[in-house]
Amino acid sequence: MISVEEALERIKQHAKPRAAHAIRASDALGSVLAVDVQSDIDSPPHDKALMDGYAVVASDIVPGVELSILEEVTAGDVPTKPVTSGTATRIMTGAPIPEGADAVVMVERTELVGEDSTTVRIDTDNSQPGQNIMPRGESVRCGDVVLRIGSMIRPIEMGVLAECGATEISAYPKPSVAILSTGNELVAAETRPKAGQIRNSNGPMLEALVQRAGNAAVNLGVGRDDRDELERLVRRGLDEDVLVLSGGVSAGVLDLVPEVLAANGVEQVFHKVHLKPGKPVWFGIRKDPEGDKLVFGLPGNPVGSLVCFELFVRPALAGLAGQEFSGIERRTARLATHHSRYGDRPTYFPARLFDRDGQFQVEPLAWKGSADLRTLADANCLALFPPRDSEFDAGEAIEVYLL
Amino acid sequence: MISVEEALERIKQHAKPRAAHAIRASDALGSVLAVDVQSDIDSPPHDKALMDGYAVVASDIVPGVELSILEEVTAGDVPTKPVTSGTATRIMTGAPIPEGADAVVMVERTELVGEDSTTVRIDTDNSQPGQNIMPRGESVRCGDVVLRIGSMIRPIEMGVLAECGATEISAYPKPSVAILSTGNELVAAETRPKAGQIRNSNGPMLEALVQRAGNAAVNLGVGRDDRDELERLVRRGLDEDVLVLSGGVSAGVLDLVPEVLAANGVEQVFHKVHLKPGKPVWFGIRKDPEGDKLVFGLPGNPVGSLVCFELFVRPALAGLAGQEFSGIERRTARLATHHSRYGDRPTYFPARLFDRDGQFQVEPLAWKGSADLRTLADANCLALFPPRDSEFDAGEAIEVYLL
Repeated sequence: MISVEEALERIKQHAKPRAAHAIRASDALGSVLAVDVQSDIDSPPHDKALMDGYAVVASDIVPGVELSILEEVTAGDVPTKPVTSGTATRIMTGAPIPEGADAVVMVERTELVGEDSTTVRIDTDNSQPGQNIMPRGESVRCGDVVLRIGSMIRPIEMGVLAECGATEISAYPKPSVAILSTGNELVAAETRPKAGQIRNSNGPMLEALVQRAGNAAVNLGVGRDDRDELERLVRRGLDEDVLVLSGGVSAGVLDLVPEVLAANGVEQVFHKVHLKPGKPVWFGIRKDPEGDKLVFGLPGNPVGSLVCFELFVRPALAGLAGQEFSGIERRTARLATHHSRYGDRPTYFPARLFDRDGQFQVEPLAWKGSADLRTLADANCLALFPPRDSEFDAGEAIEVYLL
Repeated sequence: MISVEEALERIKQHAKPRAAHAIRASDALGSVLAVDVQSDIDSPPHDKALMDGYAVVASDIVPGVELSILEEVTAGDVPTKPVTSGTATRIMTGAPIPEGADAVVMVERTELVGEDSTTVRIDTDNSQPGQNIMPRGESVRCGDVVLRIGSMIRPIEMGVLAECGATEISAYPKPSVAILSTGNELVAAETRPKAGQIRNSNGPMLEALVQRAGNAAVNLGVGRDDRDELERLVRRGLDEDVLVLSGGVSAGVLDLVPEVLAANGVEQVFHKVHLKPGKPVWFGIRKDPEGDKLVFGLPGNPVGSLVCFELFVRPALAGLAGQEFSGIERRTARLATHHSRYGDRPTYFPARLFDRDGQFQVEPLAWKGSADLRTLADANCLALFPPRDSEFDAGEAIEVYLL
C-alpha cells in the first residue's frame, strides 16, 4: 500500500494545467494568469495631487505668504494655466498638477483672504518640491509587466487589471468536476429511507467542497450498483475534467465501479493508501490529448470521503488550474488533551483548534468512526496522528489541517 | 476623530441579522442557521456493518471455526435470515446486521471452504460483541438537534442536512451589496483614459471583495459628480442592503455624495477614522423597518478602499448575515526588516507574511502610497504599525491582517 506522499506524487504528475484560454477580465476572479500582463498606460497618467489643497511653487512657501488663485482643477479636469511664482491653483485629490507647480499645500494649512476669495494665505513653511504629488508613472509605466504569469487573480488583481486596461486575459481554465455517489443503499435527501437505506450525504458535501474550491460542480446524484446505469453515469461524468465517485471502491461483491471505469478507458494509477480513514481511495486517469481526465474513487463513508477530498482532490484541482499543487492549510498545534487512539496508519481525526494565550492548541473530538458526520460538524480541523504504538500526551506537537 | 475600535463598535450596532427566511438546503452553503435543525431519522438507521465480511455470533469465534453461510446482504438489502450459532451471513460495508449476529469478522480473516463455497472458515479469535458494527442511532437519534442555531453551513453541514432529511431550512439572508464608484475622472477599464482621467479600478476590486465574502454584488459602475446622476444611482444602490461608495467623501468641492445621501434619508453615523490609509471613510444608515440600510463611503484611492473594506465592510456583511461580527484573519508576526515609517495614526501597510523555521515573519513592501495598487498585488497581508514617534526594529512583534 502506498503512502499519502507517494499518492500525492502520482496525482501531481497528472494534475498539470490545461491549455490556456482567453477570458474576460470580469470573469477572471480566482483564475491563474497564463501570460504576463502589461500596462497600456502610465499610472498615474499625470503628476497627480494626493491631497485637496493648492498647487504651488514650493520655493514660494513661507508662513503667511499670500498667493493669487488662478483657477480650480478637480479630478477629471485639465489645468489651463501654468502656476508661476506668486500664484496657486486650487486642486482636488487626484487632479493633474498644473505646469509650473511642484508641490501641493494641503487645504487645512491655508485660508482664503480678500473679499472675492481670489487670494489664499499659506500657514505653513513646510513645503518641498514633490510634496503631496504622485509623479506620472510612479506606480506603473506603460509597458511594465504588472502581473506575472502564474499570478492568482484576487480582488486586488481585479483592480490592477482594470487600471491597466487588460479587459481580456489569458488564463488556465478551472477544471469542472462531476460527482457521482454510488450504492444501492443510497436515497436522496428528500426521500425517507426504507429499511436498509440511508440518505446520500456525500453527494451534497462533495458538491459544496468543489464549489468552495472555486470549481463548477455537476452532481450526477446516485448511481445504483447496476452496470448499465453506472456506465451511463460514468460516461457523463467523463465529459468533465474530473470525476469524483464516492462509494463502490472497497472489496464488496457489488462494487462494479472499477470494472465500469476500465471499460471506459480509465486506467488505475493506484488503489488504497496507507491512511485512516480513507484507505480504499482509488485514483485513475483516462488519457486525453486535451489533458487527461482524472478520476477519484473516494470511500463511501462521509468522513473518509472528506479526508480524501481534502488530501487528494483539492491539490489536483489546484494543479489543473495552474495553481500550486497544494491542499488545505496546515499548522502545528499542541495537543490540549491526552489522546489514546493510535495505530499503524496515519490517522486524520476530527478536532477543534483554538488559540490559548497566543499558542495553537488542538483537542480531538469524541468521534464515533468514519460514518459519524455529525461530530465532524463540530470540527474546525483534522488532527494528524502519525502511526505509532503508544498514546499521545497532552502538550505534544502535531500537525493539523484546517477545515 | 474616532478610533478604528470605536468605528467598529458603531457599525456593529447596525449590523444585526435580518429576519430569517426559508431556503432550500441546496442553496444553504455559506448561510447561518436561524433555527436548530433536528434529525427525522436515526443515523445509522440500522445496526450497520463497518467492514466487508461475515456477520456472526461473537461467542462462536475461535480460530479455525467453520460456519455455514446463510445468505449475502449488501448495502441497500434487508437480511432475511437470523444468524444463529454455527451460521454466518456474508455482509458488505453499510449493510444492516442480521438479527442474532453481534459482530462482523472482516473478510480478510476468512476463507471459503467446501466445494460449493457454502461454508466459511474463520482465521481469527479476536472477536467481541459489537466488533465492526455501528449501532443504530450511534451518530444521531431521531429528534436530536444535529445543527444549532447560529451554525455556519460549510460543506460538512451540507452533508449533515442531507443525512437528516432537512431539505428546507431557516437561515439569515445574506446581504446584497451595491457598489458605486464616484468621480469625474473615472472611466471604465475598456476606455483609454484622456488627459486628467484614470480608469475605475476600485469598482472591480470591491465587486470581487463582495463576491469573495459570499455576497451578491450589484456593480453600478461610475457616478460622475453630477447631482441628478448621483441621485439616481444612490437610489438604485439603496435598493440593496448595503451601499458601498468609493470616492466622493473627502473635502473636495465636488464631493456631492454626503449631500445626496442626506437627501435620500441616509444619516451619517461617522465621518473620518483615525487610521492610514482610509482616514476619510464615511458610514451612515437609512432606517428601515425591515433592517437598516448600511452605507459606506470608502476613500477613492484603491489601497485606502481595500483597507476600509477589510476593516469595516467585511465585519458588517458578516454581522448582517448572522455570523460573528469579525473581519479578516489576524496573526502576530515578527518584523523581518527595520521599518522607518511611523506616525500618529495606526497604519495598515502592504506586506508579505512568510514562515521562517516555524515562526511567522513579515516584511513591509516598498509601497508608494495609497494609490499604488500594483505593489499591493505583491502583498499577502497588511501589517499594522501602531501610532508612535519612533522607528520599528527588525524582530518586533506586530499584528498582520491576512489578505
